[in-house]
Amino acid sequence: MIEPFSDEYFMKRAFAEAVQAFSEGEIPVGAVVVANNKIIARAHNLTETLNDVTAHAEMQAITAATNLLGGKYLNDCTLYVTLEPCVMCAGALGWAQTGRVVYGASDSKRGFRKFAPDALHPKTEITGGVLETECAELMQDFFKNKR
Amino acid sequence: MIEPFSDEYFMKRAFAEAVQAFSEGEIPVGAVVVANNKIIARAHNLTETLNDVTAHAEMQAITAATNLLGGKYLNDCTLYVTLEPCVMCAGALGWAQTGRVVYGASDSKRGFRKFAPDALHPKTEITGGVLETECAELMQDFFKNKR
Repeated sequence: MIEPFSDEYFMKRAFAEAVQAFSEGEIPVGAVVVANNKIIARAHNLTETLNDVTAHAEMQAITAATNLLGGKYLNDCTLYVTLEPCVMCAGALGWAQTGRVVYGASDSKRGFRKFAPDALHPKTEITGGVLETECAELMQDFFKNKR
Repeated sequence: MIEPFSDEYFMKRAFAEAVQAFSEGEIPVGAVVVANNKIIARAHNLTETLNDVTAHAEMQAITAATNLLGGKYLNDCTLYVTLEPCVMCAGALGWAQTGRVVYGASDSKRGFRKFAPDALHPKTEITGGVLETECAELMQDFFKNKR
């Protein structure tokens, strides 16, 4: 059983967004932004649908969350994302001074930890590996279908 | 005199976008995307106006250019921007496989060269320092007014 308001609980919601991306032929990455145990934004990768490399799940989630909050910063928020953020998204999460970032699967090829380990804000707390197996398998299934 | 279709010519157009940002109370950064010597997208920083950290000039210019071209990539394009791109923007320029990036002033504090030197696509040609003095002075004037 998944306990409400645990990291697993919110990652499951990000995972549901990733599944939605999968069903739309998008690389399956999903994200939610949580403030005070409430999901205030949810998004999934739309790069193919929009023909826009900037339409990663995290970018849309940041824009949606700050739009809702009426400010530029996410200091008191946690962003859950099924895949380790790339350089672009880590840079955006850094500008937004995101309080906490929780990701599922690691991305050894494109993840920020390899290319821009200091991109996030110094105060941002980072947790990786939540529902890692499910998140990684969804990615593997997607690319298996593509071959 | 500025020769048409030179880097200085197109940087002047990016500079005009930066001046527009300045007049709107935005950190003065402007960008244009050029394909076949034609400007296909222009944008300036709108982070304050939109309350959105992702609204950097480059990000908007990439979205606008790929929207116009109907594809995700900018292989045959040059992006001119008045300030060295940050990590986020460099990541986006990398995903878009931008053919060439030309910037004006360097950004020693937030520029990608310090935080993510390999964020751009390996084939991307980079030129810095075009109209560097004007671009840097515009930034300095902005922050002088803010103090």
